[in-house]
Amino acid sequence: MSSGKFIVIEGLEGAGKSSAITVVTQFLEANNIDFVQTREPGGTPLAENLRTLVKSVQQEQVTAETELLIMYASRSQLIHNVMRPALEAGKWVVGDRHDMSSRAYQGGGRQISAELLEPIRQCVLKNFKPDLTIYLDVSPQVGLARAQARGELDRIELEQVEFFQRTRQAYLDIAHSEANIEIVDAEQSMDKVHADIQTILAQYFS
Amino acid sequence: MSSGKFIVIEGLEGAGKSSAITVVTQFLEANNIDFVQTREPGGTPLAENLRTLVKSVQQEQVTAETELLIMYASRSQLIHNVMRPALEAGKWVVGDRHDMSSRAYQGGGRQISAELLEPIRQCVLKNFKPDLTIYLDVSPQVGLARAQARGELDRIELEQVEFFQRTRQAYLDIAHSEANIEIVDAEQSMDKVHADIQTILAQYFS
Repeated sequence: MSSGKFIVIEGLEGAGKSSAITVVTQFLEANNIDFVQTREPGGTPLAENLRTLVKSVQQEQVTAETELLIMYASRSQLIHNVMRPALEAGKWVVGDRHDMSSRAYQGGGRQISAELLEPIRQCVLKNFKPDLTIYLDVSPQVGLARAQARGELDRIELEQVEFFQRTRQAYLDIAHSEANIEIVDAEQSMDKVHADIQTILAQYFS
Repeated sequence: MSSGKFIVIEGLEGAGKSSAITVVTQFLEANNIDFVQTREPGGTPLAENLRTLVKSVQQEQVTAETELLIMYASRSQLIHNVMRPALEAGKWVVGDRHDMSSRAYQGGGRQISAELLEPIRQCVLKNFKPDLTIYLDVSPQVGLARAQARGELDRIELEQVEFFQRTRQAYLDIAHSEANIEIVDAEQSMDKVHADIQTILAQYFS
Protein backbone atom coordinates (compact mmCIF):
# COMPACT_ATOMS: atom_id res chain seq x y z
CA MET A 1 0.00 0.00 0.00
CA SER A 2 1.38 3.41 -0.87
CA SER A 3 1.86 5.96 1.87
CA GLY A 4 -0.65 8.79 2.32
CA LYS A 5 0.00 12.49 1.83
CA PHE A 6 -0.01 15.27 4.42
CA ILE A 7 -1.76 18.55 3.49
CA VAL A 8 -1.62 21.49 5.90
CA ILE A 9 -3.67 24.68 6.01
CA GLU A 10 -1.79 27.59 7.58
CA GLY A 11 -2.49 31.26 8.29
CA LEU A 12 -3.23 33.92 10.87
CA GLU A 13 -6.35 34.03 13.03
CA GLY A 14 -9.30 34.87 10.77
CA ALA A 15 -7.57 33.72 7.58
CA GLY A 16 -10.37 31.22 6.92
CA LYS A 17 -8.58 27.99 7.81
CA SER A 18 -11.68 26.09 8.91
CA SER A 19 -13.62 26.60 5.69
CA ALA A 20 -10.47 25.93 3.66
CA ILE A 21 -10.14 22.58 5.42
CA THR A 22 -13.71 21.76 4.41
CA VAL A 23 -12.77 22.47 0.79
CA VAL A 24 -9.83 20.08 1.08
CA THR A 25 -11.74 17.29 2.80
CA GLN A 26 -14.62 17.54 0.29
CA PHE A 27 -12.06 17.26 -2.50
CA LEU A 28 -10.57 14.14 -0.91
CA GLU A 29 -14.01 12.61 -0.39
CA ALA A 30 -14.88 13.29 -4.04
CA ASN A 31 -11.71 11.41 -4.97
CA ASN A 32 -12.45 8.51 -2.60
CA ILE A 33 -9.37 9.19 -0.52
CA ASP A 34 -9.41 8.07 3.10
CA PHE A 35 -8.06 10.76 5.43
CA VAL A 36 -7.80 11.90 9.04
CA GLN A 37 -8.11 15.50 10.21
CA THR A 38 -5.75 16.98 12.80
CA ARG A 39 -5.30 20.30 14.53
CA GLU A 40 -2.32 21.83 16.29
CA PRO A 41 -1.63 22.28 19.03
CA GLY A 42 -3.67 19.23 19.99
CA GLY A 43 -4.86 16.08 18.27
CA THR A 44 -4.15 13.45 20.94
CA PRO A 45 -5.53 13.35 24.50
CA LEU A 46 -2.24 14.61 25.98
CA ALA A 47 -1.74 17.14 23.17
CA GLU A 48 -5.26 18.50 23.67
CA ASN A 49 -4.45 19.04 27.35
CA LEU A 50 -1.32 20.92 26.29
CA ARG A 51 -3.43 22.96 23.84
CA THR A 52 -5.77 24.01 26.62
CA LEU A 53 -2.84 25.06 28.81
CA VAL A 54 -1.01 27.05 26.14
CA LYS A 55 -4.08 28.85 24.80
CA SER A 56 -5.66 29.73 28.16
CA VAL A 57 -5.10 33.10 29.74
CA GLN A 58 -2.86 32.32 32.74
CA GLN A 59 -2.47 34.08 36.10
CA GLU A 60 1.28 34.18 35.44
CA GLN A 61 3.38 35.40 32.53
CA VAL A 62 3.95 32.63 30.01
CA THR A 63 7.50 32.83 28.69
CA ALA A 64 8.16 32.61 24.95
CA GLU A 65 10.27 29.53 25.65
CA THR A 66 7.43 27.79 27.51
CA GLU A 67 5.02 28.50 24.67
CA LEU A 68 7.47 27.11 22.11
CA LEU A 69 8.28 23.98 24.12
CA ILE A 70 4.61 23.18 24.72
CA MET A 71 3.85 23.55 21.00
CA TYR A 72 6.57 21.05 20.10
CA ALA A 73 5.62 18.66 22.92
CA SER A 74 2.12 18.60 21.43
CA ARG A 75 3.53 18.12 17.94
CA SER A 76 5.72 15.22 19.02
CA GLN A 77 2.68 13.38 20.42
CA LEU A 78 0.61 14.05 17.31
CA ILE A 79 3.26 12.97 14.81
CA HIS A 80 4.18 9.83 16.75
CA ASN A 81 0.71 8.65 17.76
CA VAL A 82 -1.56 9.89 14.95
CA MET A 83 0.11 11.26 11.82
CA ARG A 84 2.82 8.69 11.11
CA PRO A 85 0.52 5.71 11.81
CA ALA A 86 -2.18 7.18 9.53
CA LEU A 87 0.23 7.96 6.67
CA GLU A 88 1.86 4.54 6.95
CA ALA A 89 -1.60 2.96 6.72
CA GLY A 90 -2.13 4.80 3.43
CA LYS A 91 -4.44 7.47 4.81
CA TRP A 92 -4.03 11.14 4.03
CA VAL A 93 -3.73 13.71 6.80
CA VAL A 94 -5.36 17.15 6.62
CA GLY A 95 -3.85 19.43 9.24
CA ASP A 96 -5.17 22.66 10.74
CA ARG A 97 -1.72 24.19 11.41
CA HIS A 98 1.60 22.40 11.78
CA ASP A 99 5.28 23.29 12.13
CA MET A 100 5.02 26.44 9.98
CA SER A 101 2.80 27.97 12.67
CA SER A 102 5.52 27.62 15.30
CA ARG A 103 8.11 29.12 12.99
CA ALA A 104 5.75 32.04 12.24
CA TYR A 105 4.24 32.67 15.71
CA GLN A 106 7.06 31.71 18.06
CA GLY A 107 9.92 32.40 15.63
CA GLY A 108 8.52 35.52 13.97
CA GLY A 109 5.97 36.79 16.49
CA ARG A 110 7.87 35.97 19.69
CA GLN A 111 11.24 36.45 18.00
CA ILE A 112 12.75 33.17 19.18
CA SER A 113 15.98 32.68 17.27
CA ALA A 114 16.58 30.04 14.64
CA GLU A 115 19.52 28.81 16.78
CA LEU A 116 17.01 27.60 19.32
CA LEU A 117 14.18 26.65 16.99
CA GLU A 118 16.20 24.47 14.62
CA PRO A 119 17.49 21.88 17.12
CA ILE A 120 13.99 21.49 18.59
CA ARG A 121 12.46 21.14 15.12
CA GLN A 122 15.00 18.51 14.13
CA CYS A 123 14.48 16.59 17.35
CA VAL A 124 10.70 16.51 17.10
CA LEU A 125 10.16 16.39 13.34
CA LYS A 126 12.97 14.02 12.33
CA ASN A 127 12.43 14.98 8.65
CA PHE A 128 8.65 14.70 8.93
CA LYS A 129 7.10 17.39 6.75
CA PRO A 130 3.95 18.22 4.79
CA ASP A 131 3.60 17.22 1.15
CA LEU A 132 1.57 20.36 0.49
CA THR A 133 1.01 23.50 2.55
CA ILE A 134 -1.70 26.01 1.63
CA TYR A 135 -0.92 29.31 3.32
CA LEU A 136 -3.91 31.66 3.54
CA ASP A 137 -2.42 35.15 3.53
CA VAL A 138 -4.37 37.84 5.34
CA SER A 139 -3.33 41.10 7.00
CA PRO A 140 -3.58 41.14 10.80
CA GLN A 141 -6.15 43.95 10.56
CA VAL A 142 -8.52 41.90 8.42
CA GLY A 143 -7.84 38.59 10.14
CA LEU A 144 -8.20 39.87 13.69
CA ALA A 145 -11.41 41.75 12.83
CA ARG A 146 -12.86 38.45 11.56
CA ALA A 147 -11.62 36.56 14.64
CA GLN A 148 -13.04 39.17 16.99
CA ALA A 149 -16.40 39.09 15.21
CA ARG A 150 -16.51 35.35 15.81
CA GLY A 151 -16.10 35.48 19.59
CA GLU A 152 -13.72 35.54 22.51
CA LEU A 153 -9.98 35.60 21.76
CA ASP A 154 -7.53 33.18 23.39
CA ARG A 155 -4.26 34.14 25.09
CA ILE A 156 -2.22 34.27 21.89
CA GLU A 157 -4.96 36.00 19.90
CA LEU A 158 -4.88 38.81 22.50
CA GLU A 159 -1.39 39.90 21.37
CA GLN A 160 -0.72 43.32 19.88
CA VAL A 161 -0.97 43.90 16.12
CA GLU A 162 2.85 44.19 15.82
CA PHE A 163 3.10 40.56 16.98
CA PHE A 164 0.84 39.45 14.13
CA GLN A 165 2.68 41.63 11.63
CA ARG A 166 5.92 39.85 12.52
CA THR A 167 4.08 36.52 12.37
CA ARG A 168 2.66 37.24 8.91
CA GLN A 169 6.07 38.36 7.65
CA ALA A 170 7.63 35.12 8.88
CA TYR A 171 4.86 33.15 7.15
CA LEU A 172 5.54 35.01 3.89
CA ASP A 173 9.32 34.61 4.17
CA ILE A 174 8.96 30.85 4.60
CA ALA A 175 6.33 30.58 1.84
CA HIS A 176 8.55 32.44 -0.62
CA SER A 177 11.71 30.48 0.13
CA GLU A 178 10.61 26.87 0.55
CA ALA A 179 9.10 24.20 -1.66
CA ASN A 180 5.56 22.79 -1.63
CA ILE A 181 3.92 25.89 -0.14
CA GLU A 182 1.11 27.62 -2.07
CA ILE A 183 0.01 31.13 -1.10
CA VAL A 184 -3.67 32.05 -1.38
CA ASP A 185 -4.87 35.64 -1.04
CA ALA A 186 -7.33 35.20 1.82
CA GLU A 187 -8.67 38.75 1.61
CA GLN A 188 -10.56 37.82 -1.54
CA SER A 189 -14.20 36.73 -1.39
CA MET A 190 -14.72 33.32 0.18
CA ASP A 191 -15.84 31.93 -3.20
CA LYS A 192 -12.61 33.09 -4.85
CA VAL A 193 -10.48 31.71 -2.00
CA HIS A 194 -12.19 28.33 -2.29
CA ALA A 195 -11.79 28.34 -6.08
CA ASP A 196 -8.05 29.03 -5.65
CA ILE A 197 -7.74 26.12 -3.23
CA GLN A 198 -9.58 23.81 -5.62
CA THR A 199 -7.23 24.85 -8.43
CA ILE A 200 -4.22 24.08 -6.23
CA LEU A 201 -5.63 20.67 -5.32
CA ALA A 202 -6.50 19.85 -8.93
CA GLN A 203 -2.94 20.71 -10.00
CA TYR A 204 -1.52 18.68 -7.14
CA PHE A 205 -3.55 15.65 -8.21
CA SER A 206 -2.92 15.97 -11.94
CA MET B 1 20.52 43.83 49.31
CA SER B 2 22.66 40.87 48.34
CA SER B 3 21.21 38.18 46.10
CA GLY B 4 20.05 34.90 47.61
CA LYS B 5 21.53 31.46 46.97
CA PHE B 6 19.97 28.49 45.22
CA ILE B 7 20.42 25.05 46.83
CA VAL B 8 19.10 21.96 45.04
CA ILE B 9 18.53 18.44 46.32
CA GLU B 10 18.84 15.81 43.59
CA GLY B 11 18.59 12.04 43.36
CA LEU B 12 16.62 9.01 42.23
CA GLU B 13 13.21 8.06 43.56
CA GLY B 14 13.62 6.89 47.15
CA ALA B 15 16.93 8.70 47.66
CA GLY B 16 15.46 10.63 50.58
CA LYS B 17 15.07 14.06 48.97
CA SER B 18 12.11 15.17 51.10
CA SER B 19 13.79 14.62 54.43
CA ALA B 20 17.02 16.11 53.08
CA ILE B 21 15.10 19.26 52.17
CA THR B 22 13.83 19.46 55.73
CA VAL B 23 17.43 19.32 56.96
CA VAL B 24 18.32 22.22 54.63
CA THR B 25 15.32 24.37 55.52
CA GLN B 26 15.86 23.82 59.26
CA PHE B 27 19.47 24.88 58.78
CA LEU B 28 18.36 28.06 57.00
CA GLU B 29 15.77 28.81 59.68
CA ALA B 30 18.42 28.36 62.38
CA ASN B 31 20.53 30.91 60.51
CA ASN B 32 17.61 33.35 60.09
CA ILE B 33 17.73 33.09 56.31
CA ASP B 34 14.51 33.79 54.42
CA PHE B 35 13.87 31.19 51.69
CA VAL B 36 11.29 29.75 49.32
CA GLN B 37 10.89 26.05 48.53
CA THR B 38 10.34 24.82 44.99
CA ARG B 39 9.82 21.49 43.30
CA GLU B 40 10.30 20.40 39.69
CA PRO B 41 8.53 19.82 37.53
CA GLY B 42 6.04 22.31 38.97
CA GLY B 43 6.17 25.31 41.25
CA THR B 44 3.85 27.74 39.43
CA PRO B 45 0.17 27.18 38.56
CA LEU B 46 1.00 26.45 34.89
CA ALA B 47 4.07 24.38 35.81
CA GLU B 48 2.02 22.32 38.28
CA ASN B 49 -0.44 21.56 35.48
CA LEU B 50 2.48 20.46 33.31
CA ARG B 51 3.75 18.32 36.21
CA THR B 52 0.42 16.54 36.44
CA LEU B 53 0.41 15.86 32.70
CA VAL B 54 3.98 14.56 32.50
CA LYS B 55 3.77 12.34 35.58
CA SER B 56 0.35 10.82 34.88
CA VAL B 57 0.02 7.47 33.19
CA GLN B 58 -1.38 8.36 29.75
CA GLN B 59 -3.57 6.39 27.35
CA GLU B 60 -0.99 7.09 24.64
CA GLN B 61 2.75 6.62 24.42
CA VAL B 62 4.60 9.70 25.68
CA THR B 63 7.64 10.34 23.49
CA ALA B 64 11.00 11.06 25.09
CA GLU B 65 10.95 14.41 23.29
CA THR B 66 7.56 15.36 24.75
CA GLU B 67 8.71 14.49 28.24
CA LEU B 68 11.86 16.59 27.83
CA LEU B 69 10.04 19.61 26.37
CA ILE B 70 7.40 19.60 29.12
CA MET B 71 10.12 19.47 31.79
CA TYR B 72 11.82 22.54 30.34
CA ALA B 73 8.53 24.38 29.79
CA SER B 74 7.83 23.91 33.49
CA ARG B 75 11.36 25.03 34.36
CA SER B 76 11.09 28.17 32.27
CA GLN B 77 7.95 29.21 34.16
CA LEU B 78 9.50 28.47 37.54
CA ILE B 79 12.76 30.32 36.90
CA HIS B 80 11.06 33.36 35.39
CA ASN B 81 8.14 33.71 37.78
CA VAL B 82 9.44 32.35 41.09
CA MET B 83 13.16 31.66 41.34
CA ARG B 84 14.71 34.78 39.80
CA PRO B 85 12.33 37.16 41.62
CA ALA B 86 13.01 35.41 44.96
CA LEU B 87 16.80 35.44 44.53
CA GLU B 88 16.78 39.06 43.40
CA ALA B 89 14.78 39.93 46.53
CA GLY B 90 17.55 38.38 48.61
CA LYS B 91 15.69 35.19 49.45
CA TRP B 92 17.27 31.77 49.15
CA VAL B 93 15.68 29.03 47.08
CA VAL B 94 15.63 25.38 48.15
CA GLY B 95 14.76 23.17 45.19
CA ASP B 96 13.45 19.62 45.08
CA ARG B 97 15.07 18.74 41.73
CA HIS B 98 16.21 21.11 38.97
CA ASP B 99 18.09 20.92 35.67
CA MET B 100 20.33 18.04 36.77
CA SER B 101 17.22 15.82 36.90
CA SER B 102 16.49 16.43 33.23
CA ARG B 103 20.08 15.71 32.26
CA ALA B 104 19.99 12.48 34.31
CA TYR B 105 16.46 11.21 33.52
CA GLN B 106 15.86 12.46 29.97
CA GLY B 107 19.53 12.62 28.94
CA GLY B 108 20.75 9.46 30.71
CA GLY B 109 17.58 7.45 31.22
CA ARG B 110 15.80 8.31 27.96
CA GLN B 111 19.11 8.67 26.09
CA ILE B 112 18.32 12.06 24.54
CA SER B 113 21.52 13.35 23.03
CA ALA B 114 23.49 16.33 24.30
CA GLU B 115 23.07 17.89 20.83
CA LEU B 116 19.39 18.31 21.57
CA LEU B 117 19.60 18.91 25.29
CA GLU B 118 22.18 21.68 25.22
CA PRO B 119 20.32 24.21 23.02
CA ILE B 120 17.16 23.73 25.09
CA ARG B 121 19.09 24.13 28.34
CA GLN B 122 20.76 27.31 27.11
CA CYS B 123 17.47 28.72 25.90
CA VAL B 124 15.61 28.10 29.15
CA LEU B 125 18.39 28.50 31.73
CA LYS B 126 20.27 31.47 30.27
CA ASN B 127 23.17 30.81 32.68
CA PHE B 128 20.84 30.31 35.64
CA LYS B 129 22.33 27.60 37.86
CA PRO B 130 22.38 26.38 41.46
CA ASP B 131 24.98 27.66 43.91
CA LEU B 132 25.03 24.27 45.61
CA THR B 133 23.65 20.88 44.58
CA ILE B 134 23.44 17.99 47.04
CA TYR B 135 23.13 14.74 45.09
CA LEU B 136 21.80 11.84 47.17
CA ASP B 137 23.29 8.75 45.58
CA VAL B 138 21.31 5.54 45.87
CA SER B 139 21.15 2.40 43.75
CA PRO B 140 17.91 1.91 41.79
CA GLN B 141 17.28 -1.31 43.73
CA VAL B 142 17.35 0.43 47.12
CA GLY B 143 15.64 3.62 45.93
CA LEU B 144 12.79 1.93 44.10
CA ALA B 145 12.15 -0.45 47.00
CA ARG B 146 11.75 2.61 49.26
CA ALA B 147 9.54 4.38 46.71
CA GLN B 148 7.35 1.30 46.28
CA ALA B 149 6.98 0.90 50.05
CA ARG B 150 5.68 4.48 50.19
CA GLY B 151 2.83 4.04 47.68
CA GLU B 152 1.76 4.14 44.09
CA LEU B 153 4.40 4.89 41.44
CA ASP B 154 3.93 7.57 38.76
CA ARG B 155 4.49 7.12 35.01
CA ILE B 156 8.24 7.72 35.15
CA GLU B 157 8.73 5.70 38.33
CA LEU B 158 7.20 2.71 36.52
CA GLU B 159 10.21 2.46 34.16
CA GLN B 160 12.48 -0.59 34.10
CA VAL B 161 15.52 -0.83 36.36
CA GLU B 162 17.88 -0.29 33.39
CA PHE B 163 16.36 3.16 32.90
CA PHE B 164 17.24 4.10 36.48
CA GLN B 165 20.72 2.59 36.17
CA ARG B 166 21.39 4.88 33.19
CA THR B 167 19.86 7.79 35.13
CA ARG B 168 22.07 7.15 38.18
CA GLN B 169 25.15 6.85 35.98
CA ALA B 170 24.35 10.21 34.35
CA TYR B 171 23.89 11.76 37.80
CA LEU B 172 27.29 10.41 38.90
CA ASP B 173 29.02 11.52 35.69
CA ILE B 174 27.74 15.09 36.14
CA ALA B 175 28.50 15.10 39.86
CA HIS B 176 32.09 13.98 39.27
CA SER B 177 32.80 16.44 36.46
CA GLU B 178 31.15 19.71 37.50
CA ALA B 179 31.62 22.23 40.28
CA ASN B 180 29.41 22.91 43.31
CA ILE B 181 27.91 19.41 43.47
CA GLU B 182 28.29 17.36 46.66
CA ILE B 183 27.61 13.62 46.66
CA VAL B 184 26.04 12.02 49.72
CA ASP B 185 25.81 8.23 50.11
CA ALA B 186 22.05 7.89 50.55
CA GLU B 187 22.19 4.18 51.40
CA GLN B 188 23.55 5.05 54.83
CA SER B 189 21.25 5.35 57.85
CA MET B 190 19.02 8.43 57.74
CA ASP B 191 20.89 9.90 60.71
CA LYS B 192 24.23 9.57 58.89
CA VAL B 193 22.77 11.07 55.66
CA HIS B 194 21.44 14.05 57.59
CA ALA B 195 24.74 14.50 59.41
CA ASP B 196 26.55 14.52 56.04
CA ILE B 197 24.17 17.19 54.72
CA GLN B 198 24.68 19.31 57.84
CA THR B 199 28.44 19.05 57.39
CA ILE B 200 28.13 20.18 53.76
CA LEU B 201 25.95 23.14 54.76
CA ALA B 202 28.27 24.14 57.60
CA GLN B 203 31.24 24.11 55.21
CA TYR B 204 29.25 26.07 52.64
CA PHE B 205 28.44 28.74 55.25
CA SER B 206 31.89 28.92 56.81
